[in-house]
Amino acid sequence: MTTAVCPGSFDPLTLGHVDVVRRARSMFDEVVVGVARNSAKSPLLAVEQRVALARAAFADVPGVRVEPVDGLLADFVRTVGAIAVVKGLRGGADFDAELAMALMNRHLSGAETVFVIGDQRLAHIASSLVKDVARYGGPIDDLVPAGVADAVRAALPGGDAR
Amino acid sequence: MTTAVCPGSFDPLTLGHVDVVRRARSMFDEVVVGVARNSAKSPLLAVEQRVALARAAFADVPGVRVEPVDGLLADFVRTVGAIAVVKGLRGGADFDAELAMALMNRHLSGAETVFVIGDQRLAHIASSLVKDVARYGGPIDDLVPAGVADAVRAALPGGDAR
Amino acid sequence: MTTAVCPGSFDPLTLGHVDVVRRARSMFDEVVVGVARNSAKSPLLAVEQRVALARAAFADVPGVRVEPVDGLLADFVRTVGAIAVVKGLRGGADFDAELAMALMNRHLSGAETVFVIGDQRLAHIASSLVKDVARYGGPIDDLVPAGVADAVRAALPGGDAR
Amino acid sequence: MTTAVCPGSFDPLTLGHVDVVRRARSMFDEVVVGVARNSAKSPLLAVEQRVALARAAFADVPGVRVEPVDGLLADFVRTVGAIAVVKGLRGGADFDAELAMALMNRHLSGAETVFVIGDQRLAHIASSLVKDVARYGGPIDDLVPAGVADAVRAALPGGDAR
Amino acid sequence: MTTAVCPGSFDPLTLGHVDVVRRARSMFDEVVVGVARNSAKSPLLAVEQRVALARAAFADVPGVRVEPVDGLLADFVRTVGAIAVVKGLRGGADFDAELAMALMNRHLSGAETVFVIGDQRLAHIASSLVKDVARYGGPIDDLVPAGVADAVRAALPGGDAR
Amino acid sequence: MTTAVCPGSFDPLTLGHVDVVRRARSMFDEVVVGVARNSAKSPLLAVEQRVALARAAFADVPGVRVEPVDGLLADFVRTVGAIAVVKGLRGGADFDAELAMALMNRHLSGAETVFVIGDQRLAHIASSLVKDVARYGGPIDDLVPAGVADAVRAALPGGDAR
Repeated sequence: MTTAVCPGSFDPLTLGHVDVVRRARSMFDEVVVGVARNSAKSPLLAVEQRVALARAAFADVPGVRVEPVDGLLADFVRTVGAIAVVKGLRGGADFDAELAMALMNRHLSGAETVFVIGDQRLAHIASSLVKDVARYGGPIDDLVPAGVADAVRAALPGGDAR
Repeated sequence: MTTAVCPGSFDPLTLGHVDVVRRARSMFDEVVVGVARNSAKSPLLAVEQRVALARAAFADVPGVRVEPVDGLLADFVRTVGAIAVVKGLRGGADFDAELAMALMNRHLSGAETVFVIGDQRLAHIASSLVKDVARYGGPIDDLVPAGVADAVRAALPGGDAR
Repeated sequence: MTTAVCPGSFDPLTLGHVDVVRRARSMFDEVVVGVARNSAKSPLLAVEQRVALARAAFADVPGVRVEPVDGLLADFVRTVGAIAVVKGLRGGADFDAELAMALMNRHLSGAETVFVIGDQRLAHIASSLVKDVARYGGPIDDLVPAGVADAVRAALPGGDAR
Repeated sequence: MTTAVCPGSFDPLTLGHVDVVRRARSMFDEVVVGVARNSAKSPLLAVEQRVALARAAFADVPGVRVEPVDGLLADFVRTVGAIAVVKGLRGGADFDAELAMALMNRHLSGAETVFVIGDQRLAHIASSLVKDVARYGGPIDDLVPAGVADAVRAALPGGDAR
Repeated sequence: MTTAVCPGSFDPLTLGHVDVVRRARSMFDEVVVGVARNSAKSPLLAVEQRVALARAAFADVPGVRVEPVDGLLADFVRTVGAIAVVKGLRGGADFDAELAMALMNRHLSGAETVFVIGDQRLAHIASSLVKDVARYGGPIDDLVPAGVADAVRAALPGGDAR
Repeated sequence: MTTAVCPGSFDPLTLGHVDVVRRARSMFDEVVVGVARNSAKSPLLAVEQRVALARAAFADVPGVRVEPVDGLLADFVRTVGAIAVVKGLRGGADFDAELAMALMNRHLSGAETVFVIGDQRLAHIASSLVKDVARYGGPIDDLVPAGVADAVRAALPGGDAR
């Protein structure tokens, strides 16, 4: 059985992420979505909430599970027994930014990083833009999986914690 | 009548910005310079001051006006009735960074983003570098429109509010 | 009235080209599709045929006309009185390849080159790939405007010249 | 069982190619090296010779086989039942050049293209450079698998056909 | 005698930096490693410590000395009488990010910026990744010069100040 | 004494090349302009003529000499005792294209390749564009050194061989 890891902050999970995870799943028997705690960047959503939202989004996708990543990605990759890290790639500048990270992961864990191309119809969806749009009251329901939009709105200043 | 928007933080406005706005104006009947409030990034100059400095810089350019952008750029674009957003492009990596934003704007407002190439003699002028140079007492008067240099120096720690 | 030029070899015209021309037309009153003779690269279709196919494709689009470009693009731009050259941009490397050409055109004709982002659902369509697919008998009818597919197949070795 | 295709001209096969194929093999049960006939580009080595050299190079690697690709890559991918195309990526500009091709392959065959990062110690090895070096009598034996260097030298003008 | 400056934050100094400095030294008679105070980014290590670690690392390399940069790089370059600034370049996106800075330095000091290509076996080593790895207890001793690893670990939360 | 090589086809030599060579000369005691024979690409001007034009252009620049490169650049670099190869860089995609070549040269000769940034006012000048402009009767006298424009026009079809 082959396992791959799809790492990220998922702050919040978008339809673009879901698309990449499904593509990874079409190539590997099991995909573990690794949600980085990312304490340095002060995320909008707490890691527990990001894990819960991702679990809900992939609940009906066999072979996909979601786990928090508490330490080094390289350690996580080894712990789950993954042979590859899968990331979506938008453009060439993206790749240059990912290169050192991918080589460092290979150096530490031996796992390859492979890059896939997401659905071009979702190319405008980035987590940071989703938050910007929501911050100014714009519509984000067609950018994220069901449930995520409400969580983002509730977490923003003036949001309803519900 | 065709209207285009030139968005940005303009913190501070540089001769590079002025050049891009003039190029936009050569193609569209009206250009609205949209000054983002950008509260997240804690700008050096307040949005009111950035709007005032830009208004002064374009006072003698017919068909150019300056407005603050308080919410989503896509809403601003619709409000002013623009058919295009115009941005200057320096290099390929720039484009990759702008792509998702441009697609998101099209998704939300229907407006195209078009990229123009600035005057190559101004290629070294970026707002962040202007602030760095000023911070260490370097000369910035040939990098920004008249009046802007004084405002930047006054706003820096140790600056003279005059 | 503002006029822009959409230049290219259009060997063959694709749905990607049609999309870029329509976006240009949404910003300028008139768009002239300039079909380069391109004698150096030995095109698959003769320039007369490429012009005819483009004229058919844009027959019902008011404000778009198609002309062959026999000399320098800069001369063509001046002759038709265009204020801008419009090109579609796919990625950052594209931009780097276009930069010197755009600056040379500005140097010679004063016209700006502006870059627009095509429909991402058409991002896989490049003239060279269309020819490759057709060469091996693959389906190209959903990649090019009506009429173009037949012309490409007829022009390929073993094709039916009709 | 998962199958992937590593396509290319392999004119000639280099140690960089071998490295990418081995990385692909670490992720998929079977890797088919697809050698493009590439009649348009007048390769140095005939496709039969390129297939033979690749078969020799991978003779002792279980799960790797070598086949010529006579038509569309998308058809080849379907014929061998592959779920992915694997390519090595050197830099961002590479990715931009590969994007349309990868999207076209997905459009025609449904197969993903995934990009892997080769061994950085082999980053200077490209088939075209290997031929350039050999053309001027430079040493290529540490750039290609055993047997390939002799074939390249024999195929060059003044080479010994043996 | 020709002098070049290798500027950076060196927070911390890595084997990649050492490699670039040595390459610069192979081309210029004297190389001054300029350690930016970088107060804006709240570095992990104080500038005095970064200078001391770099001095230790280059103690046995004739023609290399280490100095703090307190103001503008352009002023530093003039003060030490350098004719060039030398930086390592990883990929194309890197270059696009460096371009405006290099042009600004030339504008202010007249000095060229030249880009060298580091040892590809060190391509995974970036200061930010070194800190990330150390933060989670990963091994960094083969990423930085002797002495630096201990300093990084001591400076991290929970580190032993020794 | 330090020696650097500026290699190229110089078909034809442009003011952009002259600028890069002068920048190289500001850093190295001697610069050898290496004119590639480039038989594969069927240049417009014969190598002897390209060498003669470059010698004329640099006749009054002490420390610059011009030589044809008949074999591998790496051999040429060793023969003239150069410690570096200097190339101008326009954008990120350029760098990605140069990387493998630079690493191969280092592998074969030990010489570094360093990249400099040319005068941005000359960024529109590329040899291929100069030939395109001349081919259609456009003005090239402000793009190339004195003497080169006549040589290019004479070499073009319909040109006056004089």
